[in-house]
Amino acid sequence: MKVCNANRLRETIEAFAEIGKTKNNGVTRLSLSKEDIEARKYFIKCCEELGMSIKIDDMANIYATLPGKKDLPPILMGSHLDSVEKGGRFDGVLGVVTPLEVVRTLKDLNIELEFPITLVNFTNEEGARFDPAMMSSGVLTGKFDKEKMLKSTDKNGITFGEALENSGFKGDEQNRLKEGTAFIELHIEQGPVLESEQKEIGVVEGVVGMVCYEITVKGESNHAGTFPMKHRKDALFLAADLITHLKQELGKLDEELVYTMGRVNVHPNIHTVVPNLVKFTLESRHKDPNVIKQVETIIHSLPTESNGCTVSFEKLWGRDTVPFDETIVNTIESVSKSLGYSTRRMYSGAGHDAQFIASIVPTAMIFVPSVGGRSHCEEELTYYEDCYKGANVLLQTLLSLHDHYLSKYSSASKNQ
Amino acid sequence: MKVCNANRLRETIEAFAEIGKTKNNGVTRLSLSKEDIEARKYFIKCCEELGMSIKIDDMANIYATLPGKKDLPPILMGSHLDSVEKGGRFDGVLGVVTPLEVVRTLKDLNIELEFPITLVNFTNEEGARFDPAMMSSGVLTGKFDKEKMLKSTDKNGITFGEALENSGFKGDEQNRLKEGTAFIELHIEQGPVLESEQKEIGVVEGVVGMVCYEITVKGESNHAGTFPMKHRKDALFLAADLITHLKQELGKLDEELVYTMGRVNVHPNIHTVVPNLVKFTLESRHKDPNVIKQVETIIHSLPTESNGCTVSFEKLWGRDTVPFDETIVNTIESVSKSLGYSTRRMYSGAGHDAQFIASIVPTAMIFVPSVGGRSHCEEELTYYEDCYKGANVLLQTLLSLHDHYLSKYSSASKNQ
Repeated sequence: MKVCNANRLRETIEAFAEIGKTKNNGVTRLSLSKEDIEARKYFIKCCEELGMSIKIDDMANIYATLPGKKDLPPILMGSHLDSVEKGGRFDGVLGVVTPLEVVRTLKDLNIELEFPITLVNFTNEEGARFDPAMMSSGVLTGKFDKEKMLKSTDKNGITFGEALENSGFKGDEQNRLKEGTAFIELHIEQGPVLESEQKEIGVVEGVVGMVCYEITVKGESNHAGTFPMKHRKDALFLAADLITHLKQELGKLDEELVYTMGRVNVHPNIHTVVPNLVKFTLESRHKDPNVIKQVETIIHSLPTESNGCTVSFEKLWGRDTVPFDETIVNTIESVSKSLGYSTRRMYSGAGHDAQFIASIVPTAMIFVPSVGGRSHCEEELTYYEDCYKGANVLLQTLLSLHDHYLSKYSSASKNQ
Repeated sequence: MKVCNANRLRETIEAFAEIGKTKNNGVTRLSLSKEDIEARKYFIKCCEELGMSIKIDDMANIYATLPGKKDLPPILMGSHLDSVEKGGRFDGVLGVVTPLEVVRTLKDLNIELEFPITLVNFTNEEGARFDPAMMSSGVLTGKFDKEKMLKSTDKNGITFGEALENSGFKGDEQNRLKEGTAFIELHIEQGPVLESEQKEIGVVEGVVGMVCYEITVKGESNHAGTFPMKHRKDALFLAADLITHLKQELGKLDEELVYTMGRVNVHPNIHTVVPNLVKFTLESRHKDPNVIKQVETIIHSLPTESNGCTVSFEKLWGRDTVPFDETIVNTIESVSKSLGYSTRRMYSGAGHDAQFIASIVPTAMIFVPSVGGRSHCEEELTYYEDCYKGANVLLQTLLSLHDHYLSKYSSASKNQ
């Protein structure tokens, strides 16, 4: 079978890792920062060297297209070049670099495809500089309002709109991705499942749905020395009980459910004052909406009053599970097996541009293992060998889908 | 029995409440602020009108002395004029205003005492502007190092030393309180016990001892979506269990024990990230050192490891119980009963200047009820009727102690 060039792939990963490199071998490449712009320019240079044509849309998304023999909707591959502050060298960029390696391999092998191939770099996937995450794929697909996004502000008070204007990467709305034959995003798993189960390729069936609630416990603030226990309304003691209760109840649901109480704020947060207010988030994810419903039932069953304190909750947001395209998912699985790689079907627990693009183009994702499941940190690591395997799966998926869709288009045109 | 003037007392409380008055009828009179200085000047004016002589020491403590017929160590009464930010109209100032009313009443009744009477205003009791609390009584009694205190800085970067220089209240070290026959501090209870038990006067036997620990739970920070529960090391879940466990175990000890986990910091405190670090304080107070020892045993028995997380603790500080002078305590109780007021013996859960002064002068405190037990807030309230009863107890305690100590001094001089 046709395979990529492992050395060249490694060199390209390392070249991108130099851009915004941190002291501990991570990268800081915040969206539309100097570093992100340098990475974008390098990406465009690489694409142009392959004879690809570049288009940029009004959200600074970059599309590099290798023309096909036929004028068909392109097969798309891509991810994002931006990173979080002190992030890793693989998250996002690997889903841009592996498609680049795939196109280089096609050139090596003098393969000319019928379909145009478009590599995409989505702007501000991380949401680390400008909230929210997946901003630009969200705008493309009507999930987010562009005018609102332009006003999103970084910690220095610079709006996304200003950063866009100053980046030199503000293109034309006409260039937006509107249609495609397929979209494939390769990404690091960001979790420990593939590594712990010793699987080489994650065949991603979709992105899990989630809910996020904030639970508020209100008590009374009193002097830590002068208030006997029986007179107290300690919001923290009740909050601790509720956290433990929620953990226990959620633990009885499906074992694939994840639940995190990541943000806890205690007021007034002074060691000599009884806490009168605790707010904590409960965020939970599962592919099955019925399991998410069970999570919400547990939250809705919390007592409204206990130990003199009141308990309330607010749903901050939720999103439905996004299932990926079965044809592409099956193709990823079968080509991986043909390449001799072990696979595991899985849902992505993290959000990705692919989940938005799935609403306009048939989409799926390929995961490669993350060492220790770590990401969004300088220690983030995916072995080059695994990156290479991922690139090969991407290449073979592209070729296989190409033939599949070609026969579909041919039979469609015959039937006209 | 001789009693104070209820109207005059009320008017004086109200006059002080105008200085630094807040929108919601509280006061902000941070130590050595413009407002504190205004209150000091008003206090001195009131004392001088009564023929008292003013001395100020190097920590800006003010001593106003009404000469006695004999040159004996004075009987002292006092508290503090400073307040916390948006504090109440009674905390501290009531222990300055009631002695003033006592002296005015002595003048009304043409009573000339054998002992000098000294009213004291201690600087920076609250520690709200300059850490620590009870700073100046602490320096007087050798608990705190003066040079260190001078460097204590407020939120605007001004040192206590600078504020002292600029206040016009930096006096002479020679004027420091060195000896006294007795010291009596009247204060609001700052707790709900007197009110809930419908007692009019708190007879304070001492200030409780306390310990403060910080407990640290370390886990691992992971992505809330991609990390299966079985792989997690969630520091918050363990911290919640520990808080509940500590609450339960401490609840089995003496019912007068108080325990507060007032400060909780969760890291990184992001709703989509599994917490890898939780630090929380456990502060506990009781008059009996053996009960405090039991508290420490419970903390020392925490597991060092659990659910993949590590647990450690650090003792931030502790202080011993300070018992007050039995003669004064008994006097406060007996004069209260003579006045027909209901009493309750109690320990102070809060710290007061009296606990430091107790190491150099026989000392005790009188508590008056706090409505709802509230203090350090604009809602702080002690009914004028209760302030008046407190002033009468202070007056009678002074007169009774005066006779008691006079007979002691007389018999001592006879025996010479």
